[in-house]
Amino acid sequence: MQSARLSSYLPNLDLFVIFAHILSSGTCTMATKSLASCLFCKIIEGKIPSFKLLETETSFAFLDIGPLSKGHALVIPKYHAEKMHELPDEYLQDVLPIAKKIALAQGAADYNILQNNGRLAHQEVPHVHFHVIPKPDEVEGLGIGWPAKSVPKPELEKVFAELSAKLNAPQS
Amino acid sequence: MQSARLSSYLPNLDLFVIFAHILSSGTCTMATKSLASCLFCKIIEGKIPSFKLLETETSFAFLDIGPLSKGHALVIPKYHAEKMHELPDEYLQDVLPIAKKIALAQGAADYNILQNNGRLAHQEVPHVHFHVIPKPDEVEGLGIGWPAKSVPKPELEKVFAELSAKLNAPQS
Repeated sequence: MQSARLSSYLPNLDLFVIFAHILSSGTCTMATKSLASCLFCKIIEGKIPSFKLLETETSFAFLDIGPLSKGHALVIPKYHAEKMHELPDEYLQDVLPIAKKIALAQGAADYNILQNNGRLAHQEVPHVHFHVIPKPDEVEGLGIGWPAKSVPKPELEKVFAELSAKLNAPQS
Repeated sequence: MQSARLSSYLPNLDLFVIFAHILSSGTCTMATKSLASCLFCKIIEGKIPSFKLLETETSFAFLDIGPLSKGHALVIPKYHAEKMHELPDEYLQDVLPIAKKIALAQGAADYNILQNNGRLAHQEVPHVHFHVIPKPDEVEGLGIGWPAKSVPKPELEKVFAELSAKLNAPQS
């Protein structure tokens, strides 16, 4: 089911440039991936200008030019993947320490970290990006709808059993 | 300004248990922190039961019992901090690889990763927690309000200069 839905995006992936390079430590090989038609890959490569805030071996951070509030920034991995679960772990480990630096620079007491996967979930650019969004007041910043449900315990137990079985299954 | 706002939360921090332990590798010392009155610290310590999905040296993941959609889960660092920017980096690095595992187990094509800081930003439990929320349809899952602004370039340049100065300032 998931594969079928995800595969519908594949026609967009018209050109991949895939290469591997050895980190300076010489201790591991990191795969990187770039998509020629991707807006964010172009920003990473400097082909499209951006208000770059930070850059590391695996991540790139810049101002959102259509901000929800002052200082709204994005952190993106330097690896083309549409959704978070498609990223190698080494690209995920770097993101939140960078988001923390940006949040400290923004200086907002209240803020949201948000990462959307898929159109239904409000993703607009199909390259993983983490928003760091100051929330200065009720109006500016991220708006959140929270349709929480009261779920009977037996139903929670069933979901728990399903997820636990998948999390504990041998990795393919 | 930020310090003044943050300090208003300090009266809640009535009892800290702070200790350090040596990781099994013997190569670094990791500070941990727990707050006796914190709901999530109690869950980590097993004093309050939870539907535990995963646990590592630095993180704990469990089902949200008031879910926005089926499988809605939380990833929390095993270090008491109210807001993301207060966490040591070693507790931030582990979070997204765990969120990835959970997203793969949920199997949803569309989903959101959300972390709220402060009441204004919809934080309800004052211990950093990352939501992994499947978005199966328009109704269930996270609702998002997106009051984006069109900001003139000179104003963006000013914000960029401010943030860059802070990001490039010597660390205290």
